[in-house]
Amino acid sequence: MQDSYNGAVRRGAAARKRLTEAATGRQKADLVLKNASYVNVFTDQVSVADIAIVGDRIAGIGSYEGERELDMTGKVLLPGLIDGHIHLESSLASPGEFVRAVLPHGTTAVVTDPHEITNVMGTEGIDYMLEATEGLPVDVLFLLPSCVPATPMDESGAELSWRDIDSFYDHPRVLGLAEMMNYYGVTHGDEGVLSKLAAAQLHGKRMDGHAPGLTGRELDAYIAAGIGSDHECSTLDEALAKLERGQYIMIREGTAARNLAALAPLLTPQYASRCLFCTDDKHPNDLLEKGHIDYIIREAVNRHGVDPIIAVKAATLHAAQYFRLDGRGAIAPGYLADLVAVDDLTSFRVQQVWKGGVCRYENGTLSDIPKPQVSADLDELAHDTFHVSPLTPEDFRTEESLGVIGMVPGEIVSTDNGTADGVDLERDILKIAVIERHHNTGHIGLGYLQGYGLKRGAVATSVAHDSHNLIVVGADETEMAAAANQIIAQHGGITVVDGGRPVAGVVLEIAGLMSDLPLEEINRRLEDAKAKAAELGVSDGIDPFMTLSFMSLPVIPTLRLTTRGLVRV
Amino acid sequence: MQDSYNGAVRRGAAARKRLTEAATGRQKADLVLKNASYVNVFTDQVSVADIAIVGDRIAGIGSYEGERELDMTGKVLLPGLIDGHIHLESSLASPGEFVRAVLPHGTTAVVTDPHEITNVMGTEGIDYMLEATEGLPVDVLFLLPSCVPATPMDESGAELSWRDIDSFYDHPRVLGLAEMMNYYGVTHGDEGVLSKLAAAQLHGKRMDGHAPGLTGRELDAYIAAGIGSDHECSTLDEALAKLERGQYIMIREGTAARNLAALAPLLTPQYASRCLFCTDDKHPNDLLEKGHIDYIIREAVNRHGVDPIIAVKAATLHAAQYFRLDGRGAIAPGYLADLVAVDDLTSFRVQQVWKGGVCRYENGTLSDIPKPQVSADLDELAHDTFHVSPLTPEDFRTEESLGVIGMVPGEIVSTDNGTADGVDLERDILKIAVIERHHNTGHIGLGYLQGYGLKRGAVATSVAHDSHNLIVVGADETEMAAAANQIIAQHGGITVVDGGRPVAGVVLEIAGLMSDLPLEEINRRLEDAKAKAAELGVSDGIDPFMTLSFMSLPVIPTLRLTTRGLVRV
Repeated sequence: MQDSYNGAVRRGAAARKRLTEAATGRQKADLVLKNASYVNVFTDQVSVADIAIVGDRIAGIGSYEGERELDMTGKVLLPGLIDGHIHLESSLASPGEFVRAVLPHGTTAVVTDPHEITNVMGTEGIDYMLEATEGLPVDVLFLLPSCVPATPMDESGAELSWRDIDSFYDHPRVLGLAEMMNYYGVTHGDEGVLSKLAAAQLHGKRMDGHAPGLTGRELDAYIAAGIGSDHECSTLDEALAKLERGQYIMIREGTAARNLAALAPLLTPQYASRCLFCTDDKHPNDLLEKGHIDYIIREAVNRHGVDPIIAVKAATLHAAQYFRLDGRGAIAPGYLADLVAVDDLTSFRVQQVWKGGVCRYENGTLSDIPKPQVSADLDELAHDTFHVSPLTPEDFRTEESLGVIGMVPGEIVSTDNGTADGVDLERDILKIAVIERHHNTGHIGLGYLQGYGLKRGAVATSVAHDSHNLIVVGADETEMAAAANQIIAQHGGITVVDGGRPVAGVVLEIAGLMSDLPLEEINRRLEDAKAKAAELGVSDGIDPFMTLSFMSLPVIPTLRLTTRGLVRV
Repeated sequence: MQDSYNGAVRRGAAARKRLTEAATGRQKADLVLKNASYVNVFTDQVSVADIAIVGDRIAGIGSYEGERELDMTGKVLLPGLIDGHIHLESSLASPGEFVRAVLPHGTTAVVTDPHEITNVMGTEGIDYMLEATEGLPVDVLFLLPSCVPATPMDESGAELSWRDIDSFYDHPRVLGLAEMMNYYGVTHGDEGVLSKLAAAQLHGKRMDGHAPGLTGRELDAYIAAGIGSDHECSTLDEALAKLERGQYIMIREGTAARNLAALAPLLTPQYASRCLFCTDDKHPNDLLEKGHIDYIIREAVNRHGVDPIIAVKAATLHAAQYFRLDGRGAIAPGYLADLVAVDDLTSFRVQQVWKGGVCRYENGTLSDIPKPQVSADLDELAHDTFHVSPLTPEDFRTEESLGVIGMVPGEIVSTDNGTADGVDLERDILKIAVIERHHNTGHIGLGYLQGYGLKRGAVATSVAHDSHNLIVVGADETEMAAAANQIIAQHGGITVVDGGRPVAGVVLEIAGLMSDLPLEEINRRLEDAKAKAAELGVSDGIDPFMTLSFMSLPVIPTLRLTTRGLVRV
């Protein structure tokens, strides 16, 4: 229901009346957490009191009675945890399944950049994610993708100008403009890029940064343009240079990139108020095995000696302050009753999670999570993003000598390994192809790949940064065509082909990026596919799908393959 | 000129282009402050660098060349100072003259609550102040008066509901709802009061508090309703109770109320991030003799041992954070070039002030300040707010016994001194009247006043909290009528009458509250009037006008006089 403004004021006044009735004790609260030890992020202390909750908010903290009462003795309450920057798509799960996975870890809000799906679906990708996250018990807040496509070399599903994304700023869950990767454009007068920043500012919104290694005058220029945060710092010096110029530093500890060890020294009284946590990318097994923001807190405290209160503030208050999330990030009257009970401030094991006053997780059990209704037309669009004709082995053949991309174990950078005239399994030279799959242009980039290790069969994936075309690598062209056709037929995902037939894989039917399956099942299939890929020879130290997915990103050194062919970066 | 949105984006992009060109060194900056020591509020350090300025913003901080260059050796730069809560009217000067007075003290932004003029003129009072502050070199930001009239007992010039003030939230300089004094209304379900809060929140705006001495559950309720700050704390315990519940604490050090000594212990790393400075009321001599926010910093550092960096942050960054003033409160790329050069971090003597990159004060000299153009109709309204017929001595006569208000030297509280049947100069019992002056209702409240000291003549003032009716106190009714008629004839102000003729006074022709004269001249006339009042017998320890102005405020104990007669509070 869309209220009139008058109605919204009336409802706001009525909600306040109910809150104040409970706060003053004239009415019982809905729920009182009795004898609760809680982290007061305003005084940096652990306090003990009853916490009275009415509806989705905290009414008062003191001595209270409630319709329901829970004794909290022996636990410590934290404000709900906030991930300052993530691409939800990186979990390979639908938003609902992502929420099921992170809520038991105490996460009650994430700020997502739907960069991946938007590179596939354009603005409809943003709409899809907004609808698919509506009403979930983890608040999914959005920044608008700033760089679609990531580079002009890419053939993505869409190309978005400032005008294309502008109307999204009116959505109540859109907080700003996401990581501005085009720092050259910012600092060297690209009108389209600067217009995106100007528009975000005119809407009173935040602009996130992404500028690994930028220093000195270029960094001054980038920040002067209005970019308020960075999550790409990999050294303390880099972080301090950005912090002293006014940026908030998002300390990232995700799956692909891990900066906590380097940046933990920021988490002191001198600097911590400008620091928050984020994950950027979280892959299924990492989410399931380690956790989410709770994991970063545990690591900060136990491995890096960070004061637990400071770690909690980075995970709560500071994120809320940077993003101007009123009524979040603290346990205080009027704040959202987003609460996490942990056993203590050392192990930080999550025991209970309340979202908006409702207990959603308790004793290892997650309550039912409402499934957001996505409009039929959007849902159909999201499940039909492969606009490419079936391929034949001929499509992968060439007489030309082609460049050889060298993979580096444990890294996403590559090396330039010269040229080759064909597959050479002895020398671990495989054929690699990137197939344009958004507009059926017929563009196929071909090249060779060394260091992957495959001895037979083929591997294909539609998770292919950042444009998410179709990457195929194989020991011969017939297997490659089979793998590509399998992905096209299943509308996206990952497949391992042996003898012309898929032997393992994950269907990622939402935009070729996400599955409707539960995260555990996605992970099971993915681990199975990894094992099968290893059986086919893929080397230790190479993630057969994730490392492969970066071979098409033409902004990372040294040699990359796009739909138009090899690119030297 | 009102830009189209498209035009605003284009201008925003162009401004960024120019900033980044200078930041990267491709173009010279407009101005470079060379070798500048400056307080970095993000790292809590004094750094040294060149500060490059383009237009009204800082482009970069490092090593720069500019069209103009100034060597800053031997000075320390601070961000422009911010007063978090003031009623500009308290200076008795027009906004332009107020700005002339505070800019040399390093103030570059104030958050004003036009409570006084709005009680006289209603919404036109807000419009008048918005127009009268447009384009001034101190940014005058607004909170909307929340309590007009201050109490239902008052007869003010207007009565404003949430709907009456709602459209003002669209103005770019309106930041929220001003001090909510009706805390009983907030905590006990007054629908009009709660609707004002709900509306402010729906506009994404701040709600300031005013709740002296409120504690426990009532305080929880008040804060739960969304009120984010308090400037009325007079003890450390009270401030901590509010701070730990999430309110920002405005440490007030003004003319009438001074809380710095009690609250300075908050200015430590544990609490300071939630603290800012304000003055609330600053009277002419106090502004001229002591200064403004710079004075609070000096006092904090030199008298109360506060760390200078923390004091500077309370005067800058923390105010900007509470009010969400992007690009203010720090010296960093992209921030407004609002800068204050002081000699050192002990004496904090202001040597130069830049507002938006323009040096406005230097070597004791203030540059010309543009005079805002107020619409003719508004200006006429503001200069014609006395709607009351001339009075005769008969209007002040009565046969009844009336209550006696006892004044208390140095305080604004009063005592109930029983009743009297007439003026009795031996016992220092004078007649006092409060005359309704907004709607010519003919209402005159009469009573007696003890402790003022006047031996002959009369004193009248149209500064009469909070409804600003006309207060007259006199030794006889003829003198009282003369004093009242003098104020009516001059459309407001303060007068001292002796023998039926004014012997001193200040004309306050703007709404009966402010003068168009320079602050120095207002002060000279006011001091002269004080001297004349003293000659007529007014007691030491009684400010003849300020203390008198509170005798009509029916929310302060014990006995008060309104237009309808005496009120026991």
